[in-house]
Amino acid sequence: GYRSLRKIEGIIREEMDAAGAQEIHMSALQPAELWQESGRWYAYGPEMWRLKDRNERDFCLGPTHEEIFTDIVRDEVSSYRQLPLNLYQIQTKYRDEKRPRFGLMRSREFIMKDAYSFDRNWEGLDKSYQDMYGAYEKVFTRCGLVFRAVEADTGAIGGSASHEFTALSDVGESEIAYCDHCDMAATTERAACVDDAPDTESELPMEKVVTPGTKTIEEVAGFLKVDQKKTIKALLFKVYGEAEDQFEYVAAFIRGDRELNMTKLVNALGIPEHAIEFANENEMGEATGAVGGFTGPTGLHDCKIVVDSELIGQKNLVAGACEVDHHIKNVNYDRDYKGDIVTDLKLLKVGDKCPLCGAPVKMARGIAVGQVFKLGTKYSKSMGAYYKDENMESQLIIMGCYGIGVTRTLAAIVEQHHDDNGIIWPMSVAPYHAIVTIVSSGDEVQTALAEAIYQELQKAGVEAVLDDRNERPGVKFKDADILGIPVRITVGKKAAEGLVEYKLRKEASFTEISGHEAAAQAIAYIASELNK
Amino acid sequence: GYRSLRKIEGIIREEMDAAGAQEIHMSALQPAELWQESGRWYAYGPEMWRLKDRNERDFCLGPTHEEIFTDIVRDEVSSYRQLPLNLYQIQTKYRDEKRPRFGLMRSREFIMKDAYSFDRNWEGLDKSYQDMYGAYEKVFTRCGLVFRAVEADTGAIGGSASHEFTALSDVGESEIAYCDHCDMAATTERAACVDDAPDTESELPMEKVVTPGTKTIEEVAGFLKVDQKKTIKALLFKVYGEAEDQFEYVAAFIRGDRELNMTKLVNALGIPEHAIEFANENEMGEATGAVGGFTGPTGLHDCKIVVDSELIGQKNLVAGACEVDHHIKNVNYDRDYKGDIVTDLKLLKVGDKCPLCGAPVKMARGIAVGQVFKLGTKYSKSMGAYYKDENMESQLIIMGCYGIGVTRTLAAIVEQHHDDNGIIWPMSVAPYHAIVTIVSSGDEVQTALAEAIYQELQKAGVEAVLDDRNERPGVKFKDADILGIPVRITVGKKAAEGLVEYKLRKEASFTEISGHEAAAQAIAYIASELNK
Repeated sequence: GYRSLRKIEGIIREEMDAAGAQEIHMSALQPAELWQESGRWYAYGPEMWRLKDRNERDFCLGPTHEEIFTDIVRDEVSSYRQLPLNLYQIQTKYRDEKRPRFGLMRSREFIMKDAYSFDRNWEGLDKSYQDMYGAYEKVFTRCGLVFRAVEADTGAIGGSASHEFTALSDVGESEIAYCDHCDMAATTERAACVDDAPDTESELPMEKVVTPGTKTIEEVAGFLKVDQKKTIKALLFKVYGEAEDQFEYVAAFIRGDRELNMTKLVNALGIPEHAIEFANENEMGEATGAVGGFTGPTGLHDCKIVVDSELIGQKNLVAGACEVDHHIKNVNYDRDYKGDIVTDLKLLKVGDKCPLCGAPVKMARGIAVGQVFKLGTKYSKSMGAYYKDENMESQLIIMGCYGIGVTRTLAAIVEQHHDDNGIIWPMSVAPYHAIVTIVSSGDEVQTALAEAIYQELQKAGVEAVLDDRNERPGVKFKDADILGIPVRITVGKKAAEGLVEYKLRKEASFTEISGHEAAAQAIAYIASELNK
Repeated sequence: GYRSLRKIEGIIREEMDAAGAQEIHMSALQPAELWQESGRWYAYGPEMWRLKDRNERDFCLGPTHEEIFTDIVRDEVSSYRQLPLNLYQIQTKYRDEKRPRFGLMRSREFIMKDAYSFDRNWEGLDKSYQDMYGAYEKVFTRCGLVFRAVEADTGAIGGSASHEFTALSDVGESEIAYCDHCDMAATTERAACVDDAPDTESELPMEKVVTPGTKTIEEVAGFLKVDQKKTIKALLFKVYGEAEDQFEYVAAFIRGDRELNMTKLVNALGIPEHAIEFANENEMGEATGAVGGFTGPTGLHDCKIVVDSELIGQKNLVAGACEVDHHIKNVNYDRDYKGDIVTDLKLLKVGDKCPLCGAPVKMARGIAVGQVFKLGTKYSKSMGAYYKDENMESQLIIMGCYGIGVTRTLAAIVEQHHDDNGIIWPMSVAPYHAIVTIVSSGDEVQTALAEAIYQELQKAGVEAVLDDRNERPGVKFKDADILGIPVRITVGKKAAEGLVEYKLRKEASFTEISGHEAAAQAIAYIASELNK
């Protein structure tokens, strides 16, 4: 695994260097002061590992390095002549994940390539972003991955635009929405949703009805015999401020048949993800008038109201009455309630309308192996990273950042390249290119031929491994398959006639040829795969 | 710097692989449980960075990896047929140093190569140790270092024997003692001291004398007009146990003209370095009878007495009387006081007798760039790492460990290879082999010739850099010197005649030859340096 990891790193280095980036190496341990400057000492939340040194000074283990790179550049860059600049590192990152799992897929310590671009203006950022986007396409292609670049939310990193590079895989944790009729492709967190067309019916007067025990949308729609589309779903939250005792209540309303997209809600509120949690209904009820299972937008007080934009055009809906066992029919936006914020809060689902062309969207799962961000001035502003332009006037540096999960890429390659017997490495990242297996380790003829082939491969620069272990042939074949070495040359009984078996890991069949032919064939095949 | 660092890593990898070690990669973040098993969660002290995850579980950032590697091997190794085994990694280490300083020389985060050997028996360990010792000699030689391998204390790592590889340098923090007449070479912490020959005079009766205000050895020897060799120096300590409120007092006695070696005292007491501190004299006096400036071995109580072995044979010495302004004359070991521990506590000084041959020892300063340890069963015993031998009987695995400070090696190379104008890299670790400097960047003839030379170098595999910046020639020369690139080819006015300057960084003079000759000479020189 580590040999393959280092090959991935090698590919990344080549493409980053080719795109004009420069490699440096920063520490993982970072002083809290820099994160306090950017505001992320608070904003990053519990995913950041925090610690104190022997003098009780605060530090963190970098989950990412925007602050550190901005700090270097504000110290080192003074003139427009030093820009553009793109710095990267391949380094260990730390995130105290709530649920670390799936081995390298989501671990609390992992290897990341992170790059940071520094430009004079937004056009420069566009170019840097495109260069990195292009370099990422090359990296993942060379690693043998089938992937999609999709629009993504900027999350804790921030900035104005982002793409996630997603290696397609059913075991992936990333869900992406895409459209076969147009170019739309985005993470479901990010994907915009199209509001249903407004209702044309006229507004009827509100009417309170008794709806005993109907706490869910399903129950109330069934009880009142209305479509779930004719109901309003309430979701209640407590949102914490930066000070420990500071908080407010938030009620989000969407149509009964929709699901709430938490990322959109968090973005609408302009808060970090960790600052929000589901409200305790009793506690919230006392303060705001909410009633568990029967909360509606009318009758709520002392609570921020966030309304999905779709509700604006929908007429005569059923909503909770803020009274036990009661709902209100014919609730209409504007006339009966208003939102403090009105925005798209919906989670896109298979078959929903594509936000670009209206065709039904499709969904796929994948592994997020890379992400690029247009940061703009988020960090240069908060941390004061300026350069002097041609007129000696101070200007904010425009930044971008670009990450590849190196260890996760390794995992994604294995997910895409395996069968029931084990890994099938793409040549570019295979730990070894070829394995020469001796069937009977004690046999002198077999050993001599195998070693001759091994030497021939080594001489040609092929990374080969010789399996001369004193094990049963079945064990050796099984191990070679599990390890996934692309070419296997098996030296068995027919070594006496100079014959060996030549087999590719990805194919079931083998050919019987001379040892020398096998070596030559391996050398040619490996070279052609590496030059792809 | 980072390019050179990666070349050092490359040299280390080659020599480790050649010595049969296998590279893996472990996490820096380690669960406390493993360190509790080995006993080092307590023993390591404040130099270990400790932190808690979001679920309040204890972790540390590995200052070293004995526990982790022992843990893997106890899980993976079951049979003698899997041994010997040598695993290594090049990875980031963390030590919360009391005084981080001198850039890469002593930093709280640094890159280390650490290897761990696992053997069936002590003979196997001897071979593994010798193999690593040999590999280290090759690594440091290839890095261009002048170094000495010296006997060293095993410190917090533990084990029965150790050698430190010390790059000689006056700015180094490591002090080593060596002998020109024999093979003796050891860190001063470790170096044994020869006791002076016993006195032949007969024991006189003790006599209490008034010695007003003579708190130091110098003062009392002067006051009583005796040689400092005829006095006993007292050093008083408080030693903490593992439980927070548990402690004892310790008094160490050495001859007045000697210095105490703290490492020897700590080893004699069998405690971690961080468990001892100088005692508060008032507090200690109440409990033990000690009197600041006037403490002697007679009259002390409730206190552990550690006596330097030299004092046993010295007669009629002056010691504190444990009474203000009083000393006692003619104090003799055995008759007047006894030690709970008697051992060598002395710090070796220039001119002291070599412990092996008796010649006067010399001292040198250096940078500790590597250290090898025979751990024996320290970790396999505490953590239960066993293998089954040929008779299916469980045996403890015998371990060794071997570290190289990679970032510190970089710093040591610079310390040994520089002049007033900057670094002079050895070719093996130079960030670039050659620099082609254009004197006038705008000049077409100069640019064309420089680029032709640059291409020729690149084609030959020389790592070259082309300085085509729009800067004054003096700035470019200065930068090239500071960076320390071994070969410089300067393309200036005489480019019109096809002539350039060929200069080695380490030499003051240059030669004027044709561009092609310069490239050919550079290629040949670089190749010969790399093949050294």
